[in-house]
Amino acid sequence: MTATATDAQATTGTIVLGENQYGKAEVRVMKVDRDQARHRITELSVTSQLRGDFTAAHIDGDQGRVVPTDTQKNTVFALAKDGIPSPEEFALRLGEHFVSSFDWIEGGRWEAKEYTWEHIPSSLTANVSDGEHDHAFVKGGTETRTTVVQREGEEVFVVSGLEDLKVLKSTGSEFHGFPKDRFTTLQETTDRILATSVTARWRYTTLDIDFNAVYDDVRRILLETFADVHSLALQQTLYQMGKRVLEAHPEIGEIKFSMPNLHHFVVDFEPFGLENPNEVFYVADRPYGKIEAEVKREGADQEPRAWATVTGFC
Amino acid sequence: MTATATDAQATTGTIVLGENQYGKAEVRVMKVDRDQARHRITELSVTSQLRGDFTAAHIDGDQGRVVPTDTQKNTVFALAKDGIPSPEEFALRLGEHFVSSFDWIEGGRWEAKEYTWEHIPSSLTANVSDGEHDHAFVKGGTETRTTVVQREGEEVFVVSGLEDLKVLKSTGSEFHGFPKDRFTTLQETTDRILATSVTARWRYTTLDIDFNAVYDDVRRILLETFADVHSLALQQTLYQMGKRVLEAHPEIGEIKFSMPNLHHFVVDFEPFGLENPNEVFYVADRPYGKIEAEVKREGADQEPRAWATVTGFC
Amino acid sequence: MTATATDAQATTGTIVLGENQYGKAEVRVMKVDRDQARHRITELSVTSQLRGDFTAAHIDGDQGRVVPTDTQKNTVFALAKDGIPSPEEFALRLGEHFVSSFDWIEGGRWEAKEYTWEHIPSSLTANVSDGEHDHAFVKGGTETRTTVVQREGEEVFVVSGLEDLKVLKSTGSEFHGFPKDRFTTLQETTDRILATSVTARWRYTTLDIDFNAVYDDVRRILLETFADVHSLALQQTLYQMGKRVLEAHPEIGEIKFSMPNLHHFVVDFEPFGLENPNEVFYVADRPYGKIEAEVKREGADQEPRAWATVTGFC
Amino acid sequence: MTATATDAQATTGTIVLGENQYGKAEVRVMKVDRDQARHRITELSVTSQLRGDFTAAHIDGDQGRVVPTDTQKNTVFALAKDGIPSPEEFALRLGEHFVSSFDWIEGGRWEAKEYTWEHIPSSLTANVSDGEHDHAFVKGGTETRTTVVQREGEEVFVVSGLEDLKVLKSTGSEFHGFPKDRFTTLQETTDRILATSVTARWRYTTLDIDFNAVYDDVRRILLETFADVHSLALQQTLYQMGKRVLEAHPEIGEIKFSMPNLHHFVVDFEPFGLENPNEVFYVADRPYGKIEAEVKREGADQEPRAWATVTGFC
Repeated sequence: MTATATDAQATTGTIVLGENQYGKAEVRVMKVDRDQARHRITELSVTSQLRGDFTAAHIDGDQGRVVPTDTQKNTVFALAKDGIPSPEEFALRLGEHFVSSFDWIEGGRWEAKEYTWEHIPSSLTANVSDGEHDHAFVKGGTETRTTVVQREGEEVFVVSGLEDLKVLKSTGSEFHGFPKDRFTTLQETTDRILATSVTARWRYTTLDIDFNAVYDDVRRILLETFADVHSLALQQTLYQMGKRVLEAHPEIGEIKFSMPNLHHFVVDFEPFGLENPNEVFYVADRPYGKIEAEVKREGADQEPRAWATVTGFC
Repeated sequence: MTATATDAQATTGTIVLGENQYGKAEVRVMKVDRDQARHRITELSVTSQLRGDFTAAHIDGDQGRVVPTDTQKNTVFALAKDGIPSPEEFALRLGEHFVSSFDWIEGGRWEAKEYTWEHIPSSLTANVSDGEHDHAFVKGGTETRTTVVQREGEEVFVVSGLEDLKVLKSTGSEFHGFPKDRFTTLQETTDRILATSVTARWRYTTLDIDFNAVYDDVRRILLETFADVHSLALQQTLYQMGKRVLEAHPEIGEIKFSMPNLHHFVVDFEPFGLENPNEVFYVADRPYGKIEAEVKREGADQEPRAWATVTGFC
Repeated sequence: MTATATDAQATTGTIVLGENQYGKAEVRVMKVDRDQARHRITELSVTSQLRGDFTAAHIDGDQGRVVPTDTQKNTVFALAKDGIPSPEEFALRLGEHFVSSFDWIEGGRWEAKEYTWEHIPSSLTANVSDGEHDHAFVKGGTETRTTVVQREGEEVFVVSGLEDLKVLKSTGSEFHGFPKDRFTTLQETTDRILATSVTARWRYTTLDIDFNAVYDDVRRILLETFADVHSLALQQTLYQMGKRVLEAHPEIGEIKFSMPNLHHFVVDFEPFGLENPNEVFYVADRPYGKIEAEVKREGADQEPRAWATVTGFC
Repeated sequence: MTATATDAQATTGTIVLGENQYGKAEVRVMKVDRDQARHRITELSVTSQLRGDFTAAHIDGDQGRVVPTDTQKNTVFALAKDGIPSPEEFALRLGEHFVSSFDWIEGGRWEAKEYTWEHIPSSLTANVSDGEHDHAFVKGGTETRTTVVQREGEEVFVVSGLEDLKVLKSTGSEFHGFPKDRFTTLQETTDRILATSVTARWRYTTLDIDFNAVYDDVRRILLETFADVHSLALQQTLYQMGKRVLEAHPEIGEIKFSMPNLHHFVVDFEPFGLENPNEVFYVADRPYGKIEAEVKREGADQEPRAWATVTGFC
């Protein structure tokens, strides 16, 4: 085992800037093609990084050639307006834009990751084409099926459910009529994207059922109801989802939901001199709305032991 | 094993709404107390959820009593202006605000998580009190030390580094003079928060050193330089960090950095009729700036094998 | 805002143990039903927690009534041998087992999460029923499609791929003939589970193609080849996957893979007096095998710039 | 924008194997230096990958030159026995071992990540040197402080706590005397590593306190008690932690814990012909023990509303 070949030279020489690049990472953009009743949605996470001679920025802090990463982000949104035929073509267009727009930009790197969304299968008839809903989607295979069984001696409690079932409607959702105070800046809307990640848990009141068949049917009802309800509020959608499950399944005592409102904000194109008729959205991470509720049968006995935890808030 | 006691009743009764609450989750807020040279920063992740009679929202989609989760978010920022003495007192104030501001809000739940920031220890003299920098901080114990050793027969390459060293300056950072185009909306600033999570890797040109001692000293230089440099750009800070490491350590051939620009946006208080002189910030997740560069010795031999990967882009 | 009702009493009274439970969390078990050519696999993550009077364990450290969490884990595996008809029925059996086996166990909590696996669709004829492979599976919708575009002036490089495509074969995989030394404890096998999470990246040598169509076909080839190859080593499967992609797609220059070997260990049932003919597996997290390789065209020009990174090892 | 230079050649040529490497990733090893009363612990996550001519493995599935990744894992553990002076020296030794042990291994890549552990500061006198406990450790800065405030009109409930405080004792922990059945394989031990990640929540019975000062003191008591108690069971340690908090803080009504038993298994060195007197440990991920309990004041009023959740099990 010997030292490496470069030992001698390494300690000599002036210190200089080597290879470098910079840009904006993980710009999450959703493009909705809404020119026909059956929508098409595309979600990308885009990272744009520029290359060229940025020595002055590193040595002197001189930003004269540094196209802001914020501008790179805006450009991702602006170019999405013209469509995202494939992640490759979109990344190629970004490269073309930056290299041709700024003569000191010599090249760069554009990465795009695409997440899959599928139309929700539906047996309902409104807004349905070929057995699939036109503008309601489910993210590819995200949910986990869960169950919690608790016993106290011979008494048994079964609470089953699912976690992280990601669904989205690209239209058919409104939000208005809310109270305003001096901290209110939210605008009212009659057409927004509604997206959530459903966590639901329901209590079985009998053990004498086909658990797999009931699970499949509850999952179907949750999806179809999300797709079907013209939503005036996520709370309303949630309630309908619970109500229809209870109506169809007498063996379920009550059902509880925790449903985040995963915000998809319309990008403001006014500073760019462009219009954005609900086509290009910024997919936000945090914060998010958080809606929790129980739907139950009036007069039915409560069974708090089925829902108890030792430590709470886990 | 018997069925549970509630079997008989569970299937009877009208379906009704049970317990429920709603609000905004994971509002990440940073408050800077800058009334004296030695700043104090507090970072919270706040979840606000309201309780009351929201039946109409669930049944009819009527939002007349639903204080938007967006307003709850704004309120977190607005109340942060008056300080965050402790997470408990801040959460208590939020509760008092909502219960007293809206007569139909009967109660709720306010959760706050606090993340620890420590002043960067420093042996420099400018902006230093009691051996700690006044406005440069390191997040409690986040980094991981790394090394990658590669061999080709008897040749050995050692690239060491650290990952995820989270640092922040609450002042002493500017950003202006950048090129504008039609997609530029970013405002210039002479005082912003600069925050990053340093990933650095450097190549040793000899095996005959005390690896632990060198690591400790490189980490010290990285922290002190981040704190010390009045930053005109993250690139400039990065370059200085690399330059000082190479100057102090002839046994290091070159050093590479990947440093995200973790945005802390000043919250716009104008709609609230309040001022926000760089005191309350929204801590964003994605997208983030991404700055990558190498600092090296001019004329020194390159050793691409030390940096090679098989699959690339890992 | 007043203090809570319990102020006065809270500070009085002897300190005692309150509610408690204990057990083993996240036991990941895979059950393979292999009684017919078309296998069925079930993957659960099970958490078992027992309740009863464990005061002595807390006060005196006396373990006389504490069924070890290790035993609870073993029991999960042992009971899986008899099948997992549904997560609910499996959790119910666990509860019945513990309550009836130990007279001081008064109850408990058993949670199970189920992950979905689907048979790989296949147009090949061997081991295929109804258009699906008998013992090759893909985990529900896990992968992300990726592309990285780089430019140097007018030269453009496109490297596309996918990440985290989780696949598994419940038979048709061997591993033997490897060198042994004094640190070798691994047993040879002619029938094991082979599971991996495919990350693949390939370079396009032309821009004049239908990127979406090529992607879909590459993904199909990767899945079909994984299913089709009788595997003597993960390396062999990897190489065949790359070879078939290059054979079918002249517009792809080379392809690189990073494929972890996600271990599924046969649980040793000998101490329990049971047999385990490759039916019940422990799904391990870390460490895992890590296989990386490139498949390329002999004599073709290399294009390292397409694969270059600034910081390496990212 | 033109096509890349390699277009013409790329589609020609026989398909061959390119660069490749393989090995075991994320082997998590803990080494305890216990030759003096004051222990020193080192935790690494090691990835070992070998390079050489593995064409036969890829083309023919011939494993004759493939040192199993399982053997690489074993080697990491075996070499740890001689100490881990620094991650670099340990990775260098691994490289030397593989290159010198197998003449067809031409080189490779060894990566090590080190996690920081600090001795727990202690004001107690047993097993304490220079104000720090000899064999009780806290992982660098991992915990998050939490609070949940709930209101019902004028009634206010405050439950505060901390999450993910990672602590470890390298000795001073036993586990024996537990019941055995036919599924029991666990061995009894009088000296094991005890490690956990403390999540604790406690309810304040008054609002008229200095929340920051109480938090700091509760955290100190939790750490000192974990260090101080000679543990016969994690339950016993948990109970003592809660008891001492309640004794010191009359303003706390009750305290609840969720404490995983993070297993550190002694590596079996017998097949290697080596001894392992509690020096080298395998750090497991899943499954883990899960211990939950409440410590409260006898006769004090319960306040379930302070601990209530809407959806449960979240």
